[in-house]
This record gives sequence, structure tokens and C-alpha cells, in this order.
Amino acid sequence: MTEALPPPPRASFASDNAAGVAPEVMEALVAANAGPALAYGQDPWSAAAEDALRDLVGVPDAEVLMCWGGTGANVVGLALAVQPWQAVLCVDSAHIVVDECGAPARFTGATIVPVPHVAGKLVPEALAPFLHWQGVEHHPQPGAVSISQATEMGTVYTVDEVAALAEVAHAHDMVLHVDGARIANALVASGTDLRTMVRDTGVDVLTFGLTKDGAMYGEAVLVLRPELARAARYVRKQAGQLPSKARFVAAQVTALLEGDRWLAHARRANALAVRLAERVGAVPGVEVVRPPEVNSVFATLPAAAIAPLQGWSFFWPWDPERSEVRWMTGFATTEDDVDRFAAGVEAVVAPLVGP
Amino acid sequence: MTEALPPPPRASFASDNAAGVAPEVMEALVAANAGPALAYGQDPWSAAAEDALRDLVGVPDAEVLMCWGGTGANVVGLALAVQPWQAVLCVDSAHIVVDECGAPARFTGATIVPVPHVAGKLVPEALAPFLHWQGVEHHPQPGAVSISQATEMGTVYTVDEVAALAEVAHAHDMVLHVDGARIANALVASGTDLRTMVRDTGVDVLTFGLTKDGAMYGEAVLVLRPELARAARYVRKQAGQLPSKARFVAAQVTALLEGDRWLAHARRANALAVRLAERVGAVPGVEVVRPPEVNSVFATLPAAAIAPLQGWSFFWPWDPERSEVRWMTGFATTEDDVDRFAAGVEAVVAPLVGP
Amino acid sequence: MTEALPPPPRASFASDNAAGVAPEVMEALVAANAGPALAYGQDPWSAAAEDALRDLVGVPDAEVLMCWGGTGANVVGLALAVQPWQAVLCVDSAHIVVDECGAPARFTGATIVPVPHVAGKLVPEALAPFLHWQGVEHHPQPGAVSISQATEMGTVYTVDEVAALAEVAHAHDMVLHVDGARIANALVASGTDLRTMVRDTGVDVLTFGLTKDGAMYGEAVLVLRPELARAARYVRKQAGQLPSKARFVAAQVTALLEGDRWLAHARRANALAVRLAERVGAVPGVEVVRPPEVNSVFATLPAAAIAPLQGWSFFWPWDPERSEVRWMTGFATTEDDVDRFAAGVEAVVAPLVGP
Amino acid sequence: MTEALPPPPRASFASDNAAGVAPEVMEALVAANAGPALAYGQDPWSAAAEDALRDLVGVPDAEVLMCWGGTGANVVGLALAVQPWQAVLCVDSAHIVVDECGAPARFTGATIVPVPHVAGKLVPEALAPFLHWQGVEHHPQPGAVSISQATEMGTVYTVDEVAALAEVAHAHDMVLHVDGARIANALVASGTDLRTMVRDTGVDVLTFGLTKDGAMYGEAVLVLRPELARAARYVRKQAGQLPSKARFVAAQVTALLEGDRWLAHARRANALAVRLAERVGAVPGVEVVRPPEVNSVFATLPAAAIAPLQGWSFFWPWDPERSEVRWMTGFATTEDDVDRFAAGVEAVVAPLVGP
Repeated sequence: MTEALPPPPRASFASDNAAGVAPEVMEALVAANAGPALAYGQDPWSAAAEDALRDLVGVPDAEVLMCWGGTGANVVGLALAVQPWQAVLCVDSAHIVVDECGAPARFTGATIVPVPHVAGKLVPEALAPFLHWQGVEHHPQPGAVSISQATEMGTVYTVDEVAALAEVAHAHDMVLHVDGARIANALVASGTDLRTMVRDTGVDVLTFGLTKDGAMYGEAVLVLRPELARAARYVRKQAGQLPSKARFVAAQVTALLEGDRWLAHARRANALAVRLAERVGAVPGVEVVRPPEVNSVFATLPAAAIAPLQGWSFFWPWDPERSEVRWMTGFATTEDDVDRFAAGVEAVVAPLVGP
Repeated sequence: MTEALPPPPRASFASDNAAGVAPEVMEALVAANAGPALAYGQDPWSAAAEDALRDLVGVPDAEVLMCWGGTGANVVGLALAVQPWQAVLCVDSAHIVVDECGAPARFTGATIVPVPHVAGKLVPEALAPFLHWQGVEHHPQPGAVSISQATEMGTVYTVDEVAALAEVAHAHDMVLHVDGARIANALVASGTDLRTMVRDTGVDVLTFGLTKDGAMYGEAVLVLRPELARAARYVRKQAGQLPSKARFVAAQVTALLEGDRWLAHARRANALAVRLAERVGAVPGVEVVRPPEVNSVFATLPAAAIAPLQGWSFFWPWDPERSEVRWMTGFATTEDDVDRFAAGVEAVVAPLVGP
Repeated sequence: MTEALPPPPRASFASDNAAGVAPEVMEALVAANAGPALAYGQDPWSAAAEDALRDLVGVPDAEVLMCWGGTGANVVGLALAVQPWQAVLCVDSAHIVVDECGAPARFTGATIVPVPHVAGKLVPEALAPFLHWQGVEHHPQPGAVSISQATEMGTVYTVDEVAALAEVAHAHDMVLHVDGARIANALVASGTDLRTMVRDTGVDVLTFGLTKDGAMYGEAVLVLRPELARAARYVRKQAGQLPSKARFVAAQVTALLEGDRWLAHARRANALAVRLAERVGAVPGVEVVRPPEVNSVFATLPAAAIAPLQGWSFFWPWDPERSEVRWMTGFATTEDDVDRFAAGVEAVVAPLVGP
Repeated sequence: MTEALPPPPRASFASDNAAGVAPEVMEALVAANAGPALAYGQDPWSAAAEDALRDLVGVPDAEVLMCWGGTGANVVGLALAVQPWQAVLCVDSAHIVVDECGAPARFTGATIVPVPHVAGKLVPEALAPFLHWQGVEHHPQPGAVSISQATEMGTVYTVDEVAALAEVAHAHDMVLHVDGARIANALVASGTDLRTMVRDTGVDVLTFGLTKDGAMYGEAVLVLRPELARAARYVRKQAGQLPSKARFVAAQVTALLEGDRWLAHARRANALAVRLAERVGAVPGVEVVRPPEVNSVFATLPAAAIAPLQGWSFFWPWDPERSEVRWMTGFATTEDDVDRFAAGVEAVVAPLVGP
């Protein structure tokens, strides 16, 4: 069968972290390698990047904590949001409960309570049963609501939806944490900006991701309520998330924010996911599960097609029981990549489905 | 309305831990207060009680760990069953996830994964999605299945159901933990014995509860697979569950096991729950949610009846959104208590429902 | 050699937890077994005991938390005192670092920093090097000073010494925690009362021990600064230290406080330690390491004497490298016990030392 | 006074992480940015770097875990070495206890037991008191010995010293962990290689540091005993130390190992520390505490000299109570930097000391 396959795309559709590093990021790393600088963030690059993020989110006294990676940044953010005897409410598809090997649970000591999702999203009604726990010493005390924006299912909360969750959270003395590993994709999908989506809705702690958007490494935790930030620097260090030569994280942040490149990358990735969905959705036997909102396409296809396609251009299964897979675009994906990939899908699936 | 109420029962239907201590237990405590004895289990009472439990479960090399209380015993048992990077799979109504303020999560560091229950029970199919997690470094690794026997909903796993869960667990290199806070009630409900229910089905770790069955305090952890017990004594101590004057825990165990008193207590409690269900089930406006299998009756009743009844003879709400309450019998409940309580329910509910 | 030994004493000198239970405690347990009572401290016995302890310490809004045992009570007290990124400063002979299998370290997540002791005591100068850690994100942040009163070496801090440590602690935004497993012995040794020793000196959190002083089980945590107590009930539950049938802990507390029996027990134990030190100190070859201040005698004796004496009336080694042992008296020790024990020591040691 | 000062050096003497990135590392990063590659180590760069490290240490089945940073790598290594109920024995100046904000304590749950050092080193005799803890349930169980090579005091264990510690450790069923943040400096100081220093002595787990030796970020954990590595990948992920775009860590490792550049960098740094010690040691009023073995110079100088010198070319105090400071050289330090720095020291100190 494989002889019939077109040449594979250059880009990988396995994940948005399979891409390399955006050119401006690499240039910034080279430029930052200029003589000595104190470590651990006591350098001018760090000061500038922290200021830029504070300005971006529009909260002048926000605490900005550069961290190594996404799991670590979530751990730091949640450890600032809850005490060990509290609970974090999130959907059962959340990265913090499914994809971080229990890192937030272990480090915070808190109970992570997964609730059923609606297309990957947490809905306020799902919180209701747990509000009865508050004030009763036998139950872990709901202390934070955590959502991913965009979600692991590629859906995006509207500004109103985020605000509604913040309102419920605050009404019950809880903190709203947002895992923004793909916050850029969510923003461009929503046509809004960070201040509107995060500050104005009432988000308290944000993991601001850049790795999936063109950086080599490094994520930032933005703590928007200063009273949550008292222990911030100690928690980051204890979590093993304080970068040593921090200027190199900061330089990447600055490079990506400059000229809104971070948004341009996300815009490109999102658009190519739409293109991909159109192309593969037209292949008989392939069903796009939902229209892509950000840079992922979820599709079902004949089970027999998966392995040959993976061998040709690797990607991960999503739900093996439903023959569902996830294909992702990134800042470095091209239109040609998409078209080649869709052609490969068609080449493998068509013979299985028949005329 | 209250002047119409009959005198309240002497016993409390709030919980089976509202009763005092069985007479033979108190006698045993007095008898054990005979001169000095080394602490921490190095005394003849402890040796005898440990032997009695090993014999009861029919596993000569089982490790027996006396602990202070039920939450602590579950913590110890689970800490022997899983490593911090692993996950414990249980139902979302499990005591370990709902009623222990996150104790197992915090102490073990592991992820507690609640799955939907079926009448309080875990069914093997609910485990399936998490078996895909095994071997993938991003996911907490399913390491234990934990069930409560009887369940928090008052249902009882059959021997075959326990065996089926053990089989799934072992087939995927997981440990089966049983929270047996009400194991006596479950055994008499099933008409079987501990060896059949626990050893022969393949249970690996059992929290053996006695407090709700007539003891003053003290629960035992039985580790049936010696390879899980290597660290047992250190884990118990680190969990703050090593009793100092341990002979007084042991004396209670011996007193309750002697002449199968522990089973007689449970038999009485179970029977009275059936009587209670019949009596209150006959009251118009009261609906018994399911026939009692052990010593609890779950019922819905008019919302307006709850507060007056609580004021007369206190009990806890179960699901406020459904006007569902839980009434429990215990080793010290009498037939007269049941009849009085049912009469009170009728006296309060009848006027609300009308003719 | 053993044929020459006198009959062994009835009491054990191994530890003060080898004694049974004081008669008034047993009577109180029997009396509290009177019908039903809500669990978890919602009963009149608990209310009374909590009030009595608040009154005893003279802090009307102190939080009183009944717990199962000493290790658990220390864990609860320290978890209220520090956050995981902080450090607890204590001596390297402290129970919390040596004798609790790491329970406080594991549960709190904090760094336990042992510093050299002076006769079992922490001296303010030993804290100095760690004060430089404050404010620097690389170092665990000193958040609490923990001392044992009396110490594990049987010494007693004066009121002034406690006050001096509280002053240093508070001057550096630290909490002073006191492990009072033997607080009664310390008070009678000092000729002072709990208010003077604890409240007036500035202690913030006290583990108030009764098990070694005649109780069957149960210790109390007294939180003297209400702002530390916000999470108290959740932390106790999560630590597995919330007693179920709590009235039976409370009844013991009340029985021991009544008529100052707890102090009478300690007074007897302390006095008998003095008598024991005199008796064994007069035996050539036995050296009492320091005059007993509370209910323990530390002595060196010929290494060859230890095993035969242990076989006759068991006790524990203290420092095997120095042939040092610890002998303890308790509330149930008698003068006859002391004299018999000293006679046995003489009978074994004398032949080894020669004329 | 400052007008008399010479121009400051270009390099910083504050720490070896104040340097930037070695040129070959930056080139390797640029080269690795070549199209897509699966994340999380499933890429050819990672496979090559892991093989290179296995070969370097001479243990073909060693587990190699790339991590983000030094604290995180130590956390991962120690979490593989001990269980929560165990203890890690190390000197009281160890990075894992002083400089990681309690990260290893919190993540492992184990007790970190600091013992007195001898010039920064752990000596076997210091372990003796803790060996009595083994087998006694009240004590944390010594499970690992952790040393830093080179030490935080700039001293280096000989091969025989490491072997002696490994022997004691293994004789008592403990693991030997080495924090090798400056392993390159230690090796060139010893004139030996990694196999001799680590494999042949019996080291079980090594944190292999490269950041201080020219890398931008990334450290490796080498697990030399495969039975310790069963959980390795899960522990790394749960610790937040699994790099996403792992090829960029791997590329740095390969670049530094190639042609033994990592050793050349260390050799240069060490040699310049000797030069610095000679230069500043000749200044009256400055005392070099001990001859430098690696890339740090510890010196005492007049207290009044410290602030002016810091203002001129920043460095950190070491022991404020003794006016002791630490000056470090790195791979990018030059002879001119050293000479300028020494000249500045002389310019500031000389007037304070007088003729």
C-alpha cells in the first residue's frame, strides 16, 4: 500500500511541540549570549520580559514567574492557589489530571477532582455538587477551579464562559486557574486579547505557554492577585522550576511578544487546522469530530488506516476505542504540509472504504 | 408540630459511630489494664490479636497492622499499595476520595481517580479507559483499585464481583485494596466469611474496621501479599498510625472476634435496617431508595420534614438536592428504637403529605 | 548470675508508656459509654474537655484539637505552623526528627533542620546561622522553631528560656511550637503552671500530651494564635487524626485535669526518678549522666551488665556507643519498684566492677 | 575610593552560572533546529546523547534522564533512591539541604539528615550514629547517602573517599547519590575519568551537570543500577523535569562531550581559580581559606571592603559572620579577568589594611 503514498509532509502533525524553534527565538538566544549576567532572573532580560508580560495582561502588580516547562508551571500556579487540604476542580480530560503523571497532585498535596466535561470544557453546573463540601471537615475543601484555554479537546471558552466560571469560583472563595499552554491559539480564535480574556474575566492565576508557539523552552506563571503571590518565589524554587541562566528564557518571551509574533504564529496554526479539517473531512471514511477552533483536528477514521499512516507521518492516537486520532498544526506548518498530509490520508483511507 | 411527636428513640440513627462501645469491649479494656506492658505492639495482647486476624483471614503470613482510625488505616493500606507516580482507581462516592479530606492523596502523593459508580459499586468496565494509561510516562500509572465493602451507598459486592475486580486488577499489575470499615456488615449480608470474601477472591490489602461495629477505636490493616508489606511498619509509623499503648487496641479486637461477636453485632444492625426500611417505607411521602443490604437506609422524604425530624432525633442529609437522607442502625440499636424512630418519621411526614 | 537477682519490680522502667491507664481514666471511659453521641467531637464530653483546656492555658479563643497520638498531634501542630517551602528549626535529638519516622517531614513537606543541642535543649544562638536564610529564595524559609518540653534528654527549659526562644522566633516571623508529650512533668519540675510556661512566654502551638501521664490514648493540639487555626480542622482530618468516637478522648482529658490529677501523676513520676537516681548512683560502676529533672534517669554502666538487666526487667539502650541507658518512671511506679530495680542493678553491676 | 579602582573584569566572579553559553553549545542549538522531531526524547538527538553518556560512564544499561535543571535533577535522582519513610544522609552544607528550598524533602517525602562536614565533605564516621536507626520503626530508615562532587566548599573527594562511602552505603543497604553539578571540575582536579570516579567506586545515581560548564540549560540523571530505574520515567515526569523539545537538551550534551570540551572548560576554570587565589592571596588583608581545588576561591577580607567590591564587580557573601566570600571562575573567564579582579581587590583592601 505504501508505494501509493505521496511523499510525506515536512512538518509533523503529531503535536505542536514537534516543531522546532521560531527563527526570531533562535536569534534572540544568540543575542542574549553576550557576556556575564547574574543567574536566577537577576538580569536585564528577565526584568524586561516580566514587565512585558505584566503589561500584556494589564495588571501592573502581577507576579511573573518564568518556569522551565508546562507541567512545572501548572504545578507552581496551583501550589499558589490551594493548600493541601483543599481541592482543585477541573474536567476529567484536563492536562493537570491526565497528562502530568500526577505532578500537581503530588506537589500540592491537594485533591484533584475531575468532573465530566462538555466538549472538553468545564461548565458551572458541574461544580455544584462540590460546593456542598465547603465547611465540612471530612471533605477536601474546594479551593480552586482549573480550566485549560484552549482545552485539550481543541475547544475555546468564550470570554463570557470564563467570566461565569470566575464568578462561581469567587462566590465560593475559590481561585480560578487557567492552564494557558495554548492561550495564544485561544485568543486568536476568540478575536480578543489577553486583558479581556484573563484580567477582565477575573482569572487569578495563568500558566502562559510559549513552547508550543515557537519557543525552545520556558513558560510563565502570571499571578494576577498579589495576595496569592507571597510565597511565589519559594514555591517556584521548591518545585524545581527556577531557571538558572534565566536570561535565555526571558529573551524568548521578549522575542515572541515583539510585534505580536506569538499571535501570528497561533493564527497561522489555527488557520492551517481549518484547512486540514476541510481537506481530510472531504475524504470518505474520515469524520472530523468537531470543527477545529484552534490548531488541532480530531477525526475518526478506519482503524486499519491508523498504523500505515503513522508509519508514513507519525501522529498519536486519541481514543483507541473510537479510532479517533488527533492531528495538530504548529507555527512551522505550511499549506503544502497540510495538503500533502491530507493526500496521504486519502491515499490510505480510500482503498479501505471502497467506492 | 413537635408536640405531636412521640418520645425519640434512645439510639441515634445518625451514624453507626454514634453508638458507644460494646460491653465486652469495655470489659476487655478494663482487663487489659493489668500492670506494665511494652508499647507499640510488643505485648502479648497484640500478638494474640494479630494471630487471630491472620487466622480469620486464613493467610498465615499476612501482615497485620493495628492503626488508630479508619482514615489512617486507609492511608496506610494505600501507601503500601501504590507509589506516588501511580494512580488509585475508585468510585466517585468512595470514602477515600470524598470523606477523608484528601488524606490518601496527600500522604501517598498518588493520583486518586474517581470513576462513576453503579449503586455505589465499581464495575470492571469503568476501569477500561485508564488501562490505556499504563506504560505511558505522561499518565499517572494505575497501580491500585480500591473498593469499599460494604459501599458508602449501603450496597454489597458479591464474592464474584470482588473476584472479577481482583482479576482485572492483577491482570494489569494493580493491587486490589478494600476499605472494610463495614466489612462485618457486608459479610453477614452475603452469608459468607472473610476467607471467602477476601482471601479467595484475591484481595491484596484490607482495612478491617471494628469501630463502627462496637469498638471504642482502632482499625487493622491486613496485608495479604507479603511483598507489599516490606515497608509496612515504617509507613504506619510515618502516617501517625502506630498506637502507643497498643494492647488496648488489641484487647478490643480479641473481644470482638471471640465467639463471633463482631458478626452478631453486624447481623443485628443489618436486621434492624430492614425493619426500619419496612416501617418508614410504609409511610406515604417516604420512599426508600433501595432495599437495605447492610445497616443503612437511604430514603427521600418531603424537604420540609427534614429539619423537624433532625431536631427530634438528629441525622445527616445525604443528597440535599434530592431530599435524600441516610439513617443508620448499629450494634446498640433496638427494635424499640426502630419503631419509635419510624413513628416519629410518620408523625412529621404524614401532615405534610396529607390524606 | 541471674540466681542472685532479686525479684524484678512490677513496674517497667522501659518507658512511661509501658504503664497502663490511671484508674480515674478507666472510670471515665466506662462512664462515657452512656448511650449515643454524635461522633467527631460534636458531643458534650468534647465541648467540656475543650473548654477545660482553653481555661487551663488561659487563652479563651485557643483552638483545641483532640488527636489520636503524639506523632499525629505533632504533625497537625507543625502543619498549622509552616508551609511546605518553610523550615522547622529544632535540635537534632528532637522527637519530631528522630522518633517519628519522618512523619512531620512527609506530611508538612517542610524542611526539618536539626541543630546541635545543649543537654537536649535548643539555644537561641543555634538559630543564628539560619536566620540568614530568610528572604533568599534558594533556602527553605525558617518558619517555626520547635522544642520539646521536657526534652528527650529529660531536661527542662526554664520559663525564661522558653520566652527567649519565643522572642527570637517572633522577631523573625517564626512560630514557636512546643512538643509537650511530657509537659506535665516539665511543669511540676519547674514549679510553674501552664499559663506561665506556655501562654505568657509566647508559645504559639502546643502538643499537650496525656498518654504518658495516665491516659489510654489521645493528645491535644492547642493553637494559641487564632490566625494559625483557620485550617485546623481540615488539617487534623487530612492527617488522619480526627477521632471518631471523640467523647472517649475527651472523657480522659477531663478525668486527668480534674483535681489536678495530671500534675499529681507527673509529680510522683518525677520524684521516683530522683529516688532511682540516688539509688543507682550509689552503685559503683553506674554513673548517672545528669541529675534527673523529670521522670527519666540516664546512666552509664558496664556494657556487660546491660543484657542481663534487660532480661530481668526490660529497658531500652540510649547510646550504645557509650553504654548509656535510659530508665523511666511513670504514674504507676512505686517506691518499692524503684528499690527493687536499683537492687537488681546493683546485683548485676557489682560483680562486674569488683570490690 | 572608587575612583582608584581599575576597570572591572568582563567576566563575573559571582558564580559559574553567570557566564553565558559556550560557542559550540549555541551552534549545536542552531543546528538542532532542523525541522520537526517528536518531543519528550523520542528523537535522534536524544538517543545519541543518551548513548554518549552511557558510554562515558561505562555502564551500558544505565538509565539516562535528561532534566531541566540541577535542583530538579537532584529531586529525580533522590526520588529514585529513597522511599518517603527513608532518610538521606548528607552534609549540612549540601546543596540539596541548603540551596534547593527544600525541593528534595518535599518531593521525596523523605527525611534529609544533615551531618557535620569536614571541609565540605561527608566522612564515613559521620554516618555511624544513623546506622543504629536501621530496623527500628520509629526512626526514618537511612536509605541513601548523598554527596556533592565537587563539594559546595570547592573541595574534591578522592576516588578512594568515594569508594569508601559507597562501601559503607552498600554495606547498610543504602544507595550512594552524587550531586555532580560540578563533576567536570572534580574530574579534572582529580586527574581521573568518569568511569573511575563514578562507576568503579560504586556510585548508584549521579546528577551530571553541564549548565555550570557551558550549557544553556539541562542536566542529566544517570542511574547506574537498573533496578533503581523502574519508575524513572514516571518520576521524572511527575517531578516536572521532562523536557518537551528534548532534542535541544540533547544537542548541548553532545556538543560538550565532543572532543572532551566539557573537560577543557572545567580545566580552564580550575586553573584560573588557582591564578586568582595566588593573586588575591598576595594582598595583605585577604586570606584564602583553602587552596582552590576546583573553580572557586573562598577568602576572608576586611568587612568594609565587601560592599565597595560588590558595587564594582558583583559577587555573593559566603559566611557573613566571618567576612568570608566566594569567588568563582567559569569556562568563559580569562586570565585578564582574573588579573583585573585581583587588582580591584587590592585597590579596595589595601587602604583598609594600611602599610
